[in-house]
Amino acid sequence: MRTLYHHPLSTQSRLVRLAMNEKHLVADEREEPYWLRRGDLLSLNPSGDVPVLVEEDGEIICGGRVICEYLEDESPEVSLLGATPKARAETRRLVDWFDSKFCTEVTQFLAGEKLYKRVALGEVPDSRAMRAGRENIHAHLEYIAWLTDRRSWLAGDALSLADLAAGAHISLVDYTADVPWSDHPLAKEWYVRLKSRPSFRPLLSEMFPGVAPAAVYADLDF
Amino acid sequence: MRTLYHHPLSTQSRLVRLAMNEKHLVADEREEPYWLRRGDLLSLNPSGDVPVLVEEDGEIICGGRVICEYLEDESPEVSLLGATPKARAETRRLVDWFDSKFCTEVTQFLAGEKLYKRVALGEVPDSRAMRAGRENIHAHLEYIAWLTDRRSWLAGDALSLADLAAGAHISLVDYTADVPWSDHPLAKEWYVRLKSRPSFRPLLSEMFPGVAPAAVYADLDF
Repeated sequence: MRTLYHHPLSTQSRLVRLAMNEKHLVADEREEPYWLRRGDLLSLNPSGDVPVLVEEDGEIICGGRVICEYLEDESPEVSLLGATPKARAETRRLVDWFDSKFCTEVTQFLAGEKLYKRVALGEVPDSRAMRAGRENIHAHLEYIAWLTDRRSWLAGDALSLADLAAGAHISLVDYTADVPWSDHPLAKEWYVRLKSRPSFRPLLSEMFPGVAPAAVYADLDF
Repeated sequence: MRTLYHHPLSTQSRLVRLAMNEKHLVADEREEPYWLRRGDLLSLNPSGDVPVLVEEDGEIICGGRVICEYLEDESPEVSLLGATPKARAETRRLVDWFDSKFCTEVTQFLAGEKLYKRVALGEVPDSRAMRAGRENIHAHLEYIAWLTDRRSWLAGDALSLADLAAGAHISLVDYTADVPWSDHPLAKEWYVRLKSRPSFRPLLSEMFPGVAPAAVYADLDF
């Protein structure tokens, strides 16, 4: 069986697990505290990061988007990229949007401070950073509403990696109830549909030691 | 004809121009000072960044890696990703290596300080940042030597986007003579081969106003 080294704090790990669940692919999942930069992980991935997928033949595939593209190449039956070059470009643009812009403007300021710092480093969150994250998230939720007002899902009329990348980030921010859902009903409608999918269930049942999830986190009817 | 909005200070723009040259694709190239966040650019790409490719039919493709994947989909005759899923995964892993690790550990500290700050912002470079970049670059040049000691090019036996991504970053750092080539003969041997390719010629002939390139920059026999 494949082995997936991952961690629930890593949005790239969450993305790969969601994609594998959507594609009905299984792996032996091993939680790896990547911030410790253990030798075993470094020998698999010189960048020292998760996720890492190890194939049965020993082949090693490193990195969230790299693994997702690889699985799309290897198992195209359930496509998460799109049918045409232009559809795939739109999916990839939005994956990058969440992995770059949303990540630096929201995820790092909220989940980075409230979860990663506490769980991984044992540090106290910075209230200025959290305030910035709470301000920045509104524009992103408006963008989600704008997109899903025109399309069924973020990148088009089918669920794609764009939704899963967004879900990977937003679910982590939602763990501490930092998504202002009541101000953004259209974005909420999209997220209700997304988190109700069976692919989300394993992630929503996990807890970080020492930080209880908000009531809204795993609630499908929030 | 296609239109490519780009800027020589943007490593993602350099990557796309190199990839298009290798694939013998032409575009009407328009230099866009992306840091000004002009309305025209924002209307094409809500993230406000270059490169942006506009197709003849008006379709807009945003972002360096997104455009490269799109061109690979649309024009696979000259492949820059690789023939198998595993080869493509290795190419993408190394593209991410240069766009993430090399970028934050080297490019931003050297080209970011010495070129972007001066040309785009009119600011003075930070000597501490430059010192960090000059220290960090050694490990990356050793990694290039390690890879090219085992393979003809970075990701395998054919030139790929991995070499072009590395070249996009390194050529910018080399503009101000900040690559310690004499300490890294194997990496230098790879870069001599890379920069001698016709795809590099247009980039090496460009100059940033107010900052003359180092003698080594466009020299193919340095």
